[in-house]
Amino acid sequence: MPAFQPVRGMRDLIGEEAQTFTHIIAKARETASLYGYKEVITPHVEPLELLSAKSGEEIRQRMFIFKDLGERLVALRPEFTASIARLTTTVLKNEPKPIRLFSVGTVYRYDEPQRGRYREFWQSNFELMGSSKPEADAEIVLLTNNLMASLGLHSYAFKIGHIGVIRGILSQDGVDEKTQNAVLQRMDKKEYDSALKLVESDKCRKMLEGLLEIRGNDWLDTVEQLQSYVSNYEKAKIAAGNLAQVLKLVAESTNVNITVEPAFARGLEYYTGMIFEIYIPGLDIALGGGGRYDRLIEAFGGEPTPAVGCAHGIDRVAIALHTQKTTVAAKTEKKVVVLPITEAMKSEALKIAQLLRANGLTVEFEVMGRKMAKALEDADKRKTDFAVIVGEIELKEGAVVLKDLASRQQSIVSIDKLLEKIKS
Amino acid sequence: MPAFQPVRGMRDLIGEEAQTFTHIIAKARETASLYGYKEVITPHVEPLELLSAKSGEEIRQRMFIFKDLGERLVALRPEFTASIARLTTTVLKNEPKPIRLFSVGTVYRYDEPQRGRYREFWQSNFELMGSSKPEADAEIVLLTNNLMASLGLHSYAFKIGHIGVIRGILSQDGVDEKTQNAVLQRMDKKEYDSALKLVESDKCRKMLEGLLEIRGNDWLDTVEQLQSYVSNYEKAKIAAGNLAQVLKLVAESTNVNITVEPAFARGLEYYTGMIFEIYIPGLDIALGGGGRYDRLIEAFGGEPTPAVGCAHGIDRVAIALHTQKTTVAAKTEKKVVVLPITEAMKSEALKIAQLLRANGLTVEFEVMGRKMAKALEDADKRKTDFAVIVGEIELKEGAVVLKDLASRQQSIVSIDKLLEKIKS
Repeated sequence: MPAFQPVRGMRDLIGEEAQTFTHIIAKARETASLYGYKEVITPHVEPLELLSAKSGEEIRQRMFIFKDLGERLVALRPEFTASIARLTTTVLKNEPKPIRLFSVGTVYRYDEPQRGRYREFWQSNFELMGSSKPEADAEIVLLTNNLMASLGLHSYAFKIGHIGVIRGILSQDGVDEKTQNAVLQRMDKKEYDSALKLVESDKCRKMLEGLLEIRGNDWLDTVEQLQSYVSNYEKAKIAAGNLAQVLKLVAESTNVNITVEPAFARGLEYYTGMIFEIYIPGLDIALGGGGRYDRLIEAFGGEPTPAVGCAHGIDRVAIALHTQKTTVAAKTEKKVVVLPITEAMKSEALKIAQLLRANGLTVEFEVMGRKMAKALEDADKRKTDFAVIVGEIELKEGAVVLKDLASRQQSIVSIDKLLEKIKS
Repeated sequence: MPAFQPVRGMRDLIGEEAQTFTHIIAKARETASLYGYKEVITPHVEPLELLSAKSGEEIRQRMFIFKDLGERLVALRPEFTASIARLTTTVLKNEPKPIRLFSVGTVYRYDEPQRGRYREFWQSNFELMGSSKPEADAEIVLLTNNLMASLGLHSYAFKIGHIGVIRGILSQDGVDEKTQNAVLQRMDKKEYDSALKLVESDKCRKMLEGLLEIRGNDWLDTVEQLQSYVSNYEKAKIAAGNLAQVLKLVAESTNVNITVEPAFARGLEYYTGMIFEIYIPGLDIALGGGGRYDRLIEAFGGEPTPAVGCAHGIDRVAIALHTQKTTVAAKTEKKVVVLPITEAMKSEALKIAQLLRANGLTVEFEVMGRKMAKALEDADKRKTDFAVIVGEIELKEGAVVLKDLASRQQSIVSIDKLLEKIKS
């Protein structure tokens, strides 16, 4: 039989890589707790109708769609937001606003696999629903900043724009919404020429070309430039003003690198306001991003509910940690192997193993029935700190042999002193 | 638009239920660490060929199977063991034995939904590969015991049997393997009459009928009874002897309720030795179970590798916790709301919120722009401990108003004393 491989575009995470993932997930969960986001767990499989309702043509084409045995069309979730919107319009309908929700898990997109792009990937997802205020937008950016900082990442920068600026220009010049979506999708892929070709009006095209030139690291200067540039476009002007407010709150309350880039777009169609992504130098894939989506909940049959949210790509954050050589803190508890010398000692040795575990130690029990020398050799390879050797003679005195595998010293230790001795 | 619902048989976990799940998962991960099991993360989608290779007819028929866009037949994993076997025969092929692996996540079976049975459900999974010794079997039972105890469950009991006893009887009386599988599947469902009908030989049928009578809570007595009952069946006798050894190690090294039930079977075809399940009184669904599968790795193209493993149904453990009114320990950190009095105070208030979070407090920032009274009323509903009110007058003196929402007392506190005051 040939060796089995994972499905194309999906992968196994083992050893340190798995540890890194669980560490990032733990930090995301901690961030959620610090910001008051309640965790919700939704299915990986959702009705196709839900997932395709508002996600945008491009993502629809990249979903894993199938029929269940009851002939219902379902799909693997390509993101969390549709599921969260479903919750908000059903079981959480009467919850007082704001609602803050956190999720973490895998999502699925049928992309061409490459570094940082997998067909199954992990996201942590935060949604804040019920507020249209700029402090809500700021909170989503700030918690992303907190997550990145708590992981030990540095030099990362936020790219921030506002979908309302581009849409404001396009709609004032008569571009219909469907074309707007197509323009935004191409701009998201940085296919600017192709995006501009979709715009018939010369004036509008020139306006967009000019917008593409506006970007900068001095948030105040850039946003002022933007405000003056769009001063004749009513909706775009309001959007730029809103962007200025969000930027002010973020920049004044913390120390982050921001590039303001009003012509930047994101793949999902449902955004209506501020959008952002986060990058580290030397890695041209976003570690995460998000934005405001004020009309999604309504589109799903709920009350009009302004909302803002973000997702972090855990696979990409893991790459970033690796790129910046940031190691995940190793656990400090001692690792012990427990070795019974004879068959008759096994039950007693198991008891001792359980005693040590009850006190937080990692204990590997010798399950291979190997001779002492062989078992100790294996324990060394596994970077074990101590061996507890359970033999008849010592056990009669309520004691065992404790061997320090680093110093190679060993001594007879009574069982009731064992824990203390290992921990010291 | 009608409200969206989750896919039939799948469900949302919100509020306390989600907390219970994350708590159980954390305890499973802690148990893995204490026993030296390394976490691995495998895809939820696997090649159909892998998943259907050894899982048994019944589970094959209940899988979510589909084609990806590349026309490959894939399925949602119905369990973890096939994926772990894949790892063991590929990337982990050269790892020194024993290999101890832990996984946690969702698995999928197309069952008729009922309490404790969902089409998407959560499992924690432990596999110990490389040892054929009874102490390996014992370890799997003991770690399950540790997990249940650490969650605060009580009065639970292990049902333990040995698939080698039934197979030993059947094979000695000439029943072929395919029929054996069918017999075991029906016995698993407690359809004993239907199982017995598959056996042609009268002698063999009588033997099985007698086996069904052997069960008891006194492990030593029951296993001795079993050993004498099968004394003319060579393979069954060896199996019973092996079961006796496992039971001895478990019973002597810890205090657990065990029902020995040699005629008990489990749905998966790959078991070869000891099998077990765990139950609490008043709930007739197993919280978890597992067993020995010595030929699976080989069947997947690896070296012959004895192995034993188990999985715990997190949805069911959650029901058990609820049944036994065991509450998940609430977190003790204080919850704070930060309220800027005016627009101009927002950035400063955000800074204070971040300061408090940096010290581990849960801080909800007022993002609704509500008046003070309204915001405080909402904070009460959310069981917030303190409100930090950021106003211009106090801020000039480097201070804020701290309101204890339980006692309704408030005082002006300098920002550098704020944390201390809240934590005290």
